[in-house]
Amino acid sequence: MTERIGFIGLGIMGKPMAGHLLRAGYPLTVLDIVQTAQDELVAAGARAGTSPQEVAAQSDVVITMLPDSPEVEQVILGKQGVLEGLRAGALVIDMSTILPSTARKVAAAARARGADALDAPVSGGEVGAKNATLTIMVGGAPAAFERAKPILEKMGKNITLVGEAGAGQITKAANQIIVGVTIAAVSEALLLAAKAGVDPAKVREALMGGFASSRILELHGNRMIQRAFAPGFKIRLHRKDMNIVLNTARELGLSLPMSAHVAELMNGLIAHGGAELDHSALVTMFEKLANFEMGAASQ
Amino acid sequence: MTERIGFIGLGIMGKPMAGHLLRAGYPLTVLDIVQTAQDELVAAGARAGTSPQEVAAQSDVVITMLPDSPEVEQVILGKQGVLEGLRAGALVIDMSTILPSTARKVAAAARARGADALDAPVSGGEVGAKNATLTIMVGGAPAAFERAKPILEKMGKNITLVGEAGAGQITKAANQIIVGVTIAAVSEALLLAAKAGVDPAKVREALMGGFASSRILELHGNRMIQRAFAPGFKIRLHRKDMNIVLNTARELGLSLPMSAHVAELMNGLIAHGGAELDHSALVTMFEKLANFEMGAASQ
Repeated sequence: MTERIGFIGLGIMGKPMAGHLLRAGYPLTVLDIVQTAQDELVAAGARAGTSPQEVAAQSDVVITMLPDSPEVEQVILGKQGVLEGLRAGALVIDMSTILPSTARKVAAAARARGADALDAPVSGGEVGAKNATLTIMVGGAPAAFERAKPILEKMGKNITLVGEAGAGQITKAANQIIVGVTIAAVSEALLLAAKAGVDPAKVREALMGGFASSRILELHGNRMIQRAFAPGFKIRLHRKDMNIVLNTARELGLSLPMSAHVAELMNGLIAHGGAELDHSALVTMFEKLANFEMGAASQ
Repeated sequence: MTERIGFIGLGIMGKPMAGHLLRAGYPLTVLDIVQTAQDELVAAGARAGTSPQEVAAQSDVVITMLPDSPEVEQVILGKQGVLEGLRAGALVIDMSTILPSTARKVAAAARARGADALDAPVSGGEVGAKNATLTIMVGGAPAAFERAKPILEKMGKNITLVGEAGAGQITKAANQIIVGVTIAAVSEALLLAAKAGVDPAKVREALMGGFASSRILELHGNRMIQRAFAPGFKIRLHRKDMNIVLNTARELGLSLPMSAHVAELMNGLIAHGGAELDHSALVTMFEKLANFEMGAASQ
């Protein structure tokens, strides 16, 4: 039996993801507050939904791809929300990046309706969404994961069930910690080189083979040297994710000083007008501290 | 003409490095304040030196592998030091990890004697020294680098001339920043997972393919999960290197908040008796902040 899918949230990520499902032949109902995004998919063969409740009533699997926790709470748990229309035996897959505690709340509410839920946040950005190469980190029950897998495989490549409800969001939070703090590490290292009059491009190359090697040194390090700050992944979105990290840490009674420092530097960069820049632009905050720009030495 | 080599500093790193040169057929004079280390190489065919000055007088190339900047200053620039015996046209290669400013001072003093100098710190640790697979980051003149290359190739694999005098030490400092801060990043990420009840081993695996992937996540992340804190690279040595980083930053008028925080956590770990542990044990300082041990959740 082909699952009937409802897809709510057709933004930069959601629209191409829903498009893959449509092309794969799934009967698809779509919903977004932006009419034009919805129209495009309807023109391609999707059915237009009228409310989250109505979308859920028409679907075996409901996928949400929304900006943040409050939107997920509203769309799934709110008035005329997914929960109110959800059929027993249905499956909710929330692919937004949100608080792990909200993901657990959604999962408990779905179970109370006789349905299932997975949290399945992604990494890989707009490019990954368009090319169906997203990394998908999943939390939930193994049976629900097996049911979701053929659907998720239409949108991504590395798809891992990490643990129970919320584990997908925890994994995404861990990812954003490492990416953010490693960007800061590479910033300080390359800035030390440039300020000392040593070519940061040569330092980056010399370090790529050893213990300091990382995807961040490779990609973001190069962006810093080239001053290529067009996104990529925007600072304001990474800042949002660092808020999730720090709020979750507070809920857990955990102190994360490095993450907190990076989040504060992101706040500073946004104050300086950098919200829409790639997160590798964090290096400019370290440059402000030093009253020195790396570009000056490396060109 | 085969260069006559003097090798000063026969510790954990220096002894196996000097051994490779001896086996490669270089006439070798060795010197260490520890008599037994010297005896071993003399038994294998090296000549015993009597002072840095005397070693330099007998050598075309003088290599030093010493604990820190003060020892290098004393052995090269001090009384009966290398400089006092150094022949015109000779080459000093300091492979210790020291202040870039001290490396520049040594290079200027060598030039004033009509000799040449390279700073050529290494990474790869005891295993790299024994297997002759060290990464060697070099600062100095291209001609001196070409002259040193066949000698360095007996001890290491990735050998890069990064820039002028001091550039090797700057590159090593950049390496130690990235390694130290990335260890902190991985610590916070895996600790968040464990405290949330998610298996940090599964989180590490899920993250290894994406933007968060690094040698540190791979190797040190695994050490954290396995609680495998036998060195490896000792905290007290990494702390020493972070002192070089922060002193250099102060000399340059640079503010490196992430590096400073990591150095302080290393100080704390040493206060807790962790000086001889592997630097991946930095995770235990984050655990102390949280009053929670990762091991408890992952076993």
